[in-house]
Amino acid sequence: MRKFTVQIFEAMGSSAADAAIAADCLNQADLRGVDSHGVARLGGYVRLWEKGRLNSCPHIMTVHETPSTATIDGDLGAGLAVAPYAMKVAIEKAQAVGTGWVAVRNSNHFGIAGFHAMLPLACDMIGIALTNASPLVSPTFGKSRLLGTNPIAVAIPALNEPPLVIDMATTTVANGKLEVLQRAGKDAPEGWAQDKDGNPTTDAYVLKKGGSMLPLGGDRLHGGHKGYCLGALVDIFSAVLPGANYGPWVPPFVAFLDPSNEQVGKGIGHFVGAMRIDAFRPAKEFKQHIDNWIRTFRNAQPVNPEQPVLIPGDPERLLTAERLKNGVPVQQSVIDDMKALADRFNLPFNPEIL
Amino acid sequence: MRKFTVQIFEAMGSSAADAAIAADCLNQADLRGVDSHGVARLGGYVRLWEKGRLNSCPHIMTVHETPSTATIDGDLGAGLAVAPYAMKVAIEKAQAVGTGWVAVRNSNHFGIAGFHAMLPLACDMIGIALTNASPLVSPTFGKSRLLGTNPIAVAIPALNEPPLVIDMATTTVANGKLEVLQRAGKDAPEGWAQDKDGNPTTDAYVLKKGGSMLPLGGDRLHGGHKGYCLGALVDIFSAVLPGANYGPWVPPFVAFLDPSNEQVGKGIGHFVGAMRIDAFRPAKEFKQHIDNWIRTFRNAQPVNPEQPVLIPGDPERLLTAERLKNGVPVQQSVIDDMKALADRFNLPFNPEIL
Repeated sequence: MRKFTVQIFEAMGSSAADAAIAADCLNQADLRGVDSHGVARLGGYVRLWEKGRLNSCPHIMTVHETPSTATIDGDLGAGLAVAPYAMKVAIEKAQAVGTGWVAVRNSNHFGIAGFHAMLPLACDMIGIALTNASPLVSPTFGKSRLLGTNPIAVAIPALNEPPLVIDMATTTVANGKLEVLQRAGKDAPEGWAQDKDGNPTTDAYVLKKGGSMLPLGGDRLHGGHKGYCLGALVDIFSAVLPGANYGPWVPPFVAFLDPSNEQVGKGIGHFVGAMRIDAFRPAKEFKQHIDNWIRTFRNAQPVNPEQPVLIPGDPERLLTAERLKNGVPVQQSVIDDMKALADRFNLPFNPEIL
Repeated sequence: MRKFTVQIFEAMGSSAADAAIAADCLNQADLRGVDSHGVARLGGYVRLWEKGRLNSCPHIMTVHETPSTATIDGDLGAGLAVAPYAMKVAIEKAQAVGTGWVAVRNSNHFGIAGFHAMLPLACDMIGIALTNASPLVSPTFGKSRLLGTNPIAVAIPALNEPPLVIDMATTTVANGKLEVLQRAGKDAPEGWAQDKDGNPTTDAYVLKKGGSMLPLGGDRLHGGHKGYCLGALVDIFSAVLPGANYGPWVPPFVAFLDPSNEQVGKGIGHFVGAMRIDAFRPAKEFKQHIDNWIRTFRNAQPVNPEQPVLIPGDPERLLTAERLKNGVPVQQSVIDDMKALADRFNLPFNPEIL
């Protein structure tokens, strides 16, 4: 699947390096169980490219910088490759002055945020990745869709334990969870979404009927205004800082929806950061304490003895091990889409690999 | 009230400058409506000082630094004065290299996080303030109290609009909200807390019965694992980075509870940051777009025409204007405590000021 993804990006004209990192990013999503952001999205990038809304061979440029910061113009490239470029700049700045922070405009969907946040781990750095996204979420007391599911990802290195990896939408659930319920013919729990008039709903199809997702927490009584604040933060750091589109102006990922004629910036935006651990204390000391933190939480008294306390990143890591062994399950519609892409670019496609 | 607070800190031996900023911090909490963190807490700081757990005249030191970072030892001072010192260092670093990030160990409770996050606004910088706190919160699937209500505060400058100010506990609600329900004889909504066995509960007294608060989101189905991740992040940035106590080892704020004999660091910890806007783009351009962001959200379609969409910081700002005009309501128990403090230090106390 990774090789096929590389071939598709190269067929669009991407450099070998960009194609490789884009494929790694989609591949990691499939391995970590975020199926909505893996190879299932490959066709989406191709369709954006066909519409001239994605530049397969961008000339990425730093347009503003200080010793610890930069603003980067992604030249409408795929976020899958633009964000790793930005993170490389952040890591170099962190090596020089302790931390590096890069805001990115004029980009496209960057896949799973966790992939980018994990890049600095190998340098004994904490990694941070944020992105804004197409508006699907209403702010507290509102019924307009003004924010995306705007994820926050943070990766923190440990010594003998695996790293802590947080990768979360700032909504109660990611959009894909509603699609899972639709396929299963099930209702959604309360607190996930509201209908077009702002009433609570359990209708899993509500987004197709003008409704919207709710910020983490759900309604005001359950702290939904805090989830809204987090989504707002991600929007402002990712887009108002670099000069990308924010709020309702964020262009849709899907090629069949046209972006708004009015623009308040360029493309969508990301914000990435790298913090050298030893800019604060010796790295080994820090990582020993992270091991202790992880073990303390992992061994905490569980409510149900069968279900130990969650450690951020554990579920995705266990699933990766399982999928590396047994393979990644791929839906027939995704296989059909891959076959169509192979035909489109005259590439061989062997579904036996799946 | 502010003058009285200054007198109490000076009576404990604090410098005039430390007493002034500590009083500003408590005073801002009262003005912004966070009554639990205002003058009501003054006696708590005095009682910690009497027990030798708070140093009224600390020798605050930078123990580690790079051009964009520092680790500071607060010498067991009041966080009310230690955090502004740390933020001053962060602002200086941001002036030099674009951003400044300071982790603080060996501190005490720092009042409202928003006060500290707002300090860089005057320099056209975004301010960030995090702190860990006494463990009251269970991680997802757990029944042990391992995290505090660990707030996140971020302040973002605007041009003609007031600044955006986010100041939120990473739990569904702050601890004080349960106390309000107790006084009103009311039950808590589901999703706020669980009993000692980890069962959902609506008992507002549950913390006194061995229960715990729930992370933002509540249970797993409603995204509680995301609130837990946020609380974990705040704990790690505030304490594992600088070498303070984390998780279950965080010393309690109340003087009648003794800290654990085992320590994994020094005191409690904070993490503050200052980001120069013009490290990313011209400040005026950014602030014009923040004005546009605020107006777009403020004018979004409300669910109920009487209740416009919330803008982070608006409710506290409106309450501040009202309280500056009409005064701050203070409970009799707080007045009694202030009277006892006045007697303790042979200070005049005139309840007419209230």
